[in-house]
Amino acid sequence: MADDRFHVYDTTLRDGAQQEGLNLTVVDKLAIARQLDSLGVGFIEGGWPGANPKDTEFFRRARTELDLKHAQLAAFGATRRAGVKAADDPLVAALRESGAPVVTLVAKSHDRHVELALRTTLQENLAMIRDTVSHLRAEGQRVFLDAEHFFDGYKSNPAYALEVLRTAAEAGASVIALCDTNGGMLPDELAEVVHAAVGTSARIGIHCHDDTGCAVANTLAAVKAGATHVQGCANGYGERSGNANLFTVVANLQLKRGFDLVPREALADMTRIAHAITEVTNVTPNSHAPYVGVSAFAHKAGLHASAIKVDPNLYQHIDPAMVGNDMRMLVSDMAGRASVELKGRELGYDLSSETSRVLVERVKDLESKGYTFEAADASFELLLRDTVAGGRKRRHFEVESWRVIVERTRGGEVVSEATVKLHAKGERIVATGEGNGPVNALDKAVRLGLEKLYPELAAVELIDFKVRILEGTHGTDAVTRVLITSSDETGEWATVGVDENIIEASWQALEQAVTYGLLRAGHVAD
Amino acid sequence: MADDRFHVYDTTLRDGAQQEGLNLTVVDKLAIARQLDSLGVGFIEGGWPGANPKDTEFFRRARTELDLKHAQLAAFGATRRAGVKAADDPLVAALRESGAPVVTLVAKSHDRHVELALRTTLQENLAMIRDTVSHLRAEGQRVFLDAEHFFDGYKSNPAYALEVLRTAAEAGASVIALCDTNGGMLPDELAEVVHAAVGTSARIGIHCHDDTGCAVANTLAAVKAGATHVQGCANGYGERSGNANLFTVVANLQLKRGFDLVPREALADMTRIAHAITEVTNVTPNSHAPYVGVSAFAHKAGLHASAIKVDPNLYQHIDPAMVGNDMRMLVSDMAGRASVELKGRELGYDLSSETSRVLVERVKDLESKGYTFEAADASFELLLRDTVAGGRKRRHFEVESWRVIVERTRGGEVVSEATVKLHAKGERIVATGEGNGPVNALDKAVRLGLEKLYPELAAVELIDFKVRILEGTHGTDAVTRVLITSSDETGEWATVGVDENIIEASWQALEQAVTYGLLRAGHVAD
Repeated sequence: MADDRFHVYDTTLRDGAQQEGLNLTVVDKLAIARQLDSLGVGFIEGGWPGANPKDTEFFRRARTELDLKHAQLAAFGATRRAGVKAADDPLVAALRESGAPVVTLVAKSHDRHVELALRTTLQENLAMIRDTVSHLRAEGQRVFLDAEHFFDGYKSNPAYALEVLRTAAEAGASVIALCDTNGGMLPDELAEVVHAAVGTSARIGIHCHDDTGCAVANTLAAVKAGATHVQGCANGYGERSGNANLFTVVANLQLKRGFDLVPREALADMTRIAHAITEVTNVTPNSHAPYVGVSAFAHKAGLHASAIKVDPNLYQHIDPAMVGNDMRMLVSDMAGRASVELKGRELGYDLSSETSRVLVERVKDLESKGYTFEAADASFELLLRDTVAGGRKRRHFEVESWRVIVERTRGGEVVSEATVKLHAKGERIVATGEGNGPVNALDKAVRLGLEKLYPELAAVELIDFKVRILEGTHGTDAVTRVLITSSDETGEWATVGVDENIIEASWQALEQAVTYGLLRAGHVAD
Repeated sequence: MADDRFHVYDTTLRDGAQQEGLNLTVVDKLAIARQLDSLGVGFIEGGWPGANPKDTEFFRRARTELDLKHAQLAAFGATRRAGVKAADDPLVAALRESGAPVVTLVAKSHDRHVELALRTTLQENLAMIRDTVSHLRAEGQRVFLDAEHFFDGYKSNPAYALEVLRTAAEAGASVIALCDTNGGMLPDELAEVVHAAVGTSARIGIHCHDDTGCAVANTLAAVKAGATHVQGCANGYGERSGNANLFTVVANLQLKRGFDLVPREALADMTRIAHAITEVTNVTPNSHAPYVGVSAFAHKAGLHASAIKVDPNLYQHIDPAMVGNDMRMLVSDMAGRASVELKGRELGYDLSSETSRVLVERVKDLESKGYTFEAADASFELLLRDTVAGGRKRRHFEVESWRVIVERTRGGEVVSEATVKLHAKGERIVATGEGNGPVNALDKAVRLGLEKLYPELAAVELIDFKVRILEGTHGTDAVTRVLITSSDETGEWATVGVDENIIEASWQALEQAVTYGLLRAGHVAD
């Protein structure tokens, strides 16, 4: 469990999910929670149970499916409605029943919002806070309070804003996070308000948005002014311009301010974690993200190359290894060849410099067409083997032809059927598979056709399928990239296909997936 | 001409161009300079003439092709080499001959960099600065100095770093910009150093990088400490994590700190300018960019929607019109009734509260199945129309069945063919289309079938196609979401389909795309 004296509180699954275009399933949320826990954050806000069936299900499944090492789950929700007892409010009940050890209540602290959004009196709002906090505390949960619109509220009516803090603290809220909900604050002004809030003797947290490009700096300014609880989101996800990027905040505090927030080895895994989360959210990673972006330590060589060789630390603000990133020098053919040789050695091939040169050319050519080998190591290894064999494609089977039919019948049923015609071990094979989609049908047809000759294929399974359209401006003319992940009893591998036709791209990746599976099973290809 | 008392200095064309993947032609640079001038920046750093033939050409062409209203051009370059007279150094000559009214000299202010990168003495470095500044001043140019690695240099040897400032100022440099070259500073520490530099009585500028996510806040902190010249790049372009985003800096200073930096009507054009520059650089615009991103004023939370109706300013930190942006309401599973009503009004429908309730239920239900309406306005409007009609699907045509065949022939050719059977205007239609992929073939078949009855379909085009697999852990069993963008002569619209079968998902989106296109053309559906 993380130290309670300073909180790293993640709200990716709740406030981060407010980002335009971000849409997380329950499975996505569970996967992100595991990544955040592996980073060592103290709290993970899972969503708003009761208000949203997906979030209710998240908390239900979390009890059995999440085995958190560092983090505690927090359920987000509102104070009771006006004129109702906290114990009788069904939304408060959902928080109580979420099973989360912590409840974070959002409350109004801006007088105008109380009147306009809640349509109640300032006094009743305080009563709503007092009652809901006391009720949940009495029921055994720890309570944090998000003071919404606190900074604008403080400008409008400082006495009332501070009264909200005192009310919540006296009712038993252990932290009150001041929220710059509209994100308009700049650090100096924000620090003054935090200072005033810290003076109420409530324990103060901070929740910032990036509408002025200052979310991280605002968070740091609040910590300097006495906040001991920082909220933020993975990769800076969030509504509008996003929330404070929790990764940047943690790295700044730990590496530049001496805070001991997450285990050192977890911090050294931060770049991987940041990217793993983008895989789940399917949001293109920001290559320029501080600390964890692929460009964060990339230098266009030139002017300073010799000095960088003497002392790289003169040209980087931290050692990138501390956050699991790397210094990269850009624009260098030699770097390409060296890394191909290195990768070859990793796979057990000692490549001649001529083979490396040819392989680099082929990789460059294919990548310019949309292939990517970073995420498809099995395709890279097949390409390497073919290059070593002088460019000859060595496969366990030859493809004569294939055909896929997808049909929606008069009755409204959708069916997919694929037929493949292959040659293997001197035989001609014709096989047909049915599936719930065209790729599934093709996959079934290939296995059915080859399983008699290669029984090991029974253990090979297609476990993930990713599609990306690479040029979105030409409609269906765009090039489609398909990445397939397959597994057998001992491991996983990924293959890639690219074509303007999505089915052909899928076929390429499938064909390689089966070939690589057969190589893994010990079958030498001809 | 802009006021000289406070400088807005753009370095997009020089330091911004160091961004990984950014590659600007001379024509690109001229186009960007025109956009920056229209925003009203005071200085545009065009590049390093002499060091780079492209930049030499930029300054040559700028004399005749750039008609700047506000900005002055600055040529960037280094101090003379060690042991050479400034007048004899060919790189100094190139600066002199650039025709730029301002020269910005980069100089070392970090003792270790003088020794390791310049390989000269600390004294000679000062002489290089003194000679080069004096020489260019005598030749009639205004000189600014970029004190490279100033903050790290100040930590290493404060007396020497300050001596560099004094030397440059005494030799006639009118501004000395302190550069956080490695980008590692945080605002509080940076402000202290700027304060010390301002004490030397040199006029101080600031140049920040975003490696700690604090470039904007650092720039503001420097201004508060006395800097009167801010450097930055359009859209935050730059090496590693980028330079300070000049747009964010200008908007913050002008709208929140009362500086009068650019004309008010130019600021109101900032969103357009930011996007026009991304068209030139071909870098995907950051939708989350403060002030100018398409999401910067987009709201998703159902919680807030009812109060937003009453007073939008309670929910935005500035009026988006001041930077040429707009508030937008998103429809999502967070949506409450109020945001659906608001969206309905945006689309021209006055929804009854019962219709809104039913619509919210349907949106929530569909979003839980993987649909997303945020990015599919047309699908949302069709859903809304159907709900208004009491749940009856109103369409221009009925689908009897469809079939798609994708085949790779013996000869290796891949062909796609689709047949649709439809009913419209009392006719039964059977049409077949061929395409370079299954969706393209379906699209062609539908149009071919309907074009005789609806000739307007000839103008409808499918311009983008996006695929997302929503649960990547079940292989091809996963649910697929397809987003299609279509256009006609007057606009664009987006539709969404979801199914475990990618072809069926595409069909749903296609069918809606055509329906919506017909509605736009004025055809009422039955």
